[in-house]
Amino acid sequence: MMADLDISKIIDEICELSKDEKGEITRFPFSDPWLRAQMYLKELFEKSGFDTYFDCAGNLHGRMGAPGDTILTGSHADTVRNGGKYDGLYGVVAAAAAVSRLYKKHGMPKKALEVVAFSEEEGTRFPFNFWGSKALIGDIEWKKIKNLKDKEGISIVEALENQGFSYSEGCAKKDDIKAFVEIHIEQGGVLEAKNMEIGVVTGIVGYKKFNVEILGEANHAGTTPMGFRKDAGFCAGLIVSELIKKAREQGDPLVATIGQIEFRPNLANVVPAYAQFSLDMRHTDGDALNRFQEEALEIIKKITSIEKCTFNFTAIFDDKPVYMDKNIMDVITEACENQGVKHMKIHSGAGHDSQILARIAPVGMVFVPSKNGVSHNPREFTEPELLEKGACVLEETLYKLAY
Amino acid sequence: MMADLDISKIIDEICELSKDEKGEITRFPFSDPWLRAQMYLKELFEKSGFDTYFDCAGNLHGRMGAPGDTILTGSHADTVRNGGKYDGLYGVVAAAAAVSRLYKKHGMPKKALEVVAFSEEEGTRFPFNFWGSKALIGDIEWKKIKNLKDKEGISIVEALENQGFSYSEGCAKKDDIKAFVEIHIEQGGVLEAKNMEIGVVTGIVGYKKFNVEILGEANHAGTTPMGFRKDAGFCAGLIVSELIKKAREQGDPLVATIGQIEFRPNLANVVPAYAQFSLDMRHTDGDALNRFQEEALEIIKKITSIEKCTFNFTAIFDDKPVYMDKNIMDVITEACENQGVKHMKIHSGAGHDSQILARIAPVGMVFVPSKNGVSHNPREFTEPELLEKGACVLEETLYKLAY
Repeated sequence: MMADLDISKIIDEICELSKDEKGEITRFPFSDPWLRAQMYLKELFEKSGFDTYFDCAGNLHGRMGAPGDTILTGSHADTVRNGGKYDGLYGVVAAAAAVSRLYKKHGMPKKALEVVAFSEEEGTRFPFNFWGSKALIGDIEWKKIKNLKDKEGISIVEALENQGFSYSEGCAKKDDIKAFVEIHIEQGGVLEAKNMEIGVVTGIVGYKKFNVEILGEANHAGTTPMGFRKDAGFCAGLIVSELIKKAREQGDPLVATIGQIEFRPNLANVVPAYAQFSLDMRHTDGDALNRFQEEALEIIKKITSIEKCTFNFTAIFDDKPVYMDKNIMDVITEACENQGVKHMKIHSGAGHDSQILARIAPVGMVFVPSKNGVSHNPREFTEPELLEKGACVLEETLYKLAY
Repeated sequence: MMADLDISKIIDEICELSKDEKGEITRFPFSDPWLRAQMYLKELFEKSGFDTYFDCAGNLHGRMGAPGDTILTGSHADTVRNGGKYDGLYGVVAAAAAVSRLYKKHGMPKKALEVVAFSEEEGTRFPFNFWGSKALIGDIEWKKIKNLKDKEGISIVEALENQGFSYSEGCAKKDDIKAFVEIHIEQGGVLEAKNMEIGVVTGIVGYKKFNVEILGEANHAGTTPMGFRKDAGFCAGLIVSELIKKAREQGDPLVATIGQIEFRPNLANVVPAYAQFSLDMRHTDGDALNRFQEEALEIIKKITSIEKCTFNFTAIFDDKPVYMDKNIMDVITEACENQGVKHMKIHSGAGHDSQILARIAPVGMVFVPSKNGVSHNPREFTEPELLEKGACVLEETLYKLAY
C-alpha cells in the first residue's frame, strides 16, 4: 500500500516551519510557532478532503463524515520548551494519514471519523495542562483558569484572544464522541529494550505529586559541632535515599522521582535551615500508589523526628489511574496480529489526552518505540518505518470502529 | 575600675549609624555604611588619644606609642549581608577600650600598641576574603585581585578609589608587627553550652572546600522504570547521607557540611541528569582532614560506580590549620585566672584575620560566648557583661605584651 501522506516528511516540514527564533521546537500554546503548525495542519486536512474547523479553545478539527456519532482520533500540537519532533504531533499526522487512506479505500465511514490537534496538553506555558481535551469534554472550571498566567503575565484567555480565538465557558464542548483512539510515542525505553514495534496501551498510571519541606536550623558550618545541628539538607539527603531505595524494592510498575530540590540559604558555609523537594510517584494500581504514599510519609516522619527537624508534606495533585477500553485494546491487538507487527501490552507512565477523553468515552492508545527512550528533547526519535507501522495499525483500528 | 568606653553602647551606636537603606547591618567593604562606621571609629580613636591613619587598603589604624616594635590588636569592620552587631566590630571596639584604659592607667607602652579595624574580612562583596589583613602583611597577588568584581561589576580597586583610597601593590604592608591579639565572638554554641565566659583559642581549623558534580542521565519520571535510570539526584542523596554519617562517626573536632545543592534540569517530572553540591570540611589536625578527604572521595567513587553515574571532585580551596602562639595563650589564660573568669581552651571553626597575621607574627585569640551560637544574623548577641569581661582579659594580655 502506497502512503499518500508521508508521515515522517510532514512532521519534518511542520517542525521546520514552526521553529522558534532560537531554531528550537518550542510550540507553546497560542504562540506564533504553534499557530504556524496548526495552520499547516488545517491546510493538510483540507487537501485530504476533511471538513475543518477550529473550536474556540484553539483545537483544530478535521472531520470526515456526516454529523452524528463520531470516532475521534489525534493528539496535541503543542510541545515543551526545546522539545522533540514526535511527542503529540505524530499522533495528529498519523491520524490524518490513517483517515485519509480509509476514505480513499472505503469512502465515507458509517460513523464520522474526526482528527483533532489539541491546542494544549503539556502544561508548560500555563500552570494547567490538558487544556484542549478538557475544553472538548466541557471540564474547564472557569473560575480556576481565569487568573492563570504565563511568565509574561498573559492569561490563557488573553493568549487565545491574541490569536483570534474567543473562548467562553463550555463553548468547545462536543457531545458526539463515541470513542477516542490516540497514537503516541512511548517516551520510555521499554518497547525498544524488548525489541517490539507497537505497544498496546493497557492504561495510564495513577500519578501523585507532593511538595516536601524540611525545617531545620541555619548554623555556621565551621563553629557548630555535628552534634549541635538540625541539618535540613542532611535530612533531605536521607529521605531521598530511603524513598528511592524503597521504590526500587517494590519495583515495576511503581516509579518514584525526586527531580527538584532547593536548600536555603543554599550557601556552602551554612548548615541548611530549610530543604524543599518534589516527590513524583506513579503506579498503575491506585491502591498500591496510596500504600506507597503512606510509606513515604512514614519515612519522612521517622527521619525528621530522629534529626530534630520538622516537615510539611503537601499534595499538589492526585490523578487516579485510567484504564483503556478492553474492546478497543482487542481491536488494536488484532490489527497488530493481522499486520504481523511485534507488539506487547504496556502501560503509560506519562499522562495523555486519552485520560481526559476516558471520562466521557471508551478510549484506546497505540505506542510506537522511542529511540533510547528519549522524549521532551531534540534527540527524540522514532524510525520512519515504525511511524508508518503505527499509522497502519491505527488505520485498521479506526476501520473496525467506524466502518 | 570604671570603663571609659562603654563597649556595648558604642557597638549599638555604630550599628545604628551604619545601617543600610533597608535598616539592616550590611557593611560591605567600601560601601557608604562601611565608611560611616570607619569614620566613627576614627573619631573615637582620636578622642581616646590615638594617632590615627587609614592605610591605602582601607584599614583604619589607631596607634599609641612611638615608631618601632608594635603589638597589634583589633578585628574587622565589614559584615556579611544582614549580619549581626558583634562579628568583627566587637574586636575593634574592645581593643580600643583596652588600649585607652591602659594608657590612662600606665601611660605610653614600651612597645607601641596599635588598634586596627580591617577593611574587609568576610569575602561577601568580592570573591576574595581577608583583604585587609592580607594587604597588611603584603600578601596580595595583584594579578589575582585586579579582575575580581562585585555583582555590580565594580572591581575591588575601583571600590576603594570611589571612597578616596588609592591602592597600589604592597602599599599597606607593615613591618613592625611583633604580635597580634584578636578578640571575637565565638560564633558557635560551645562556650554557652559549657557555661564558660571566655575561650582561650588554641588554633583555627584547617578548612577545605570542594565542588562535587554528579553526571547521570535525564529521563521522563513517568515512563522510565526504576531499573533504567541513571539518577544523579538519588546519587547525590546517597552521598550526602553517607558523608554526613561518616563525619558524625568521627566526631569533634571534625565538621562536614553540604550547604549548597543544585539539580538539573530541576523539574519534578524529570529524573535529574546532573547534581552539584558543595562539600565544606574542617578539622584542627591537617592530617585528619586529609584522611577525611580521602574517605569522602571513596564514598563518592563507590556510590557513583554502583549507580552508573560519573563525577567530578574539584578542590576550591585548602587552608591549613593555624596554631595560636603558646606564650600568648599562657598570657591570656593567666589573665582569665587573675580576673576569676570561667575559661576553657577552644578551637575556632571559623576563619579570622589572626590566621593571616600568624604568617608573620605570633598570634593569640580570645573568644566571648555567642548567645545560642548564632552568628552572621541579626540575632547575634553577647551579654554586655561578657563583652566587658573579654575586654578586661584583652587589656591584661596587652599589658603583659607591651608594658
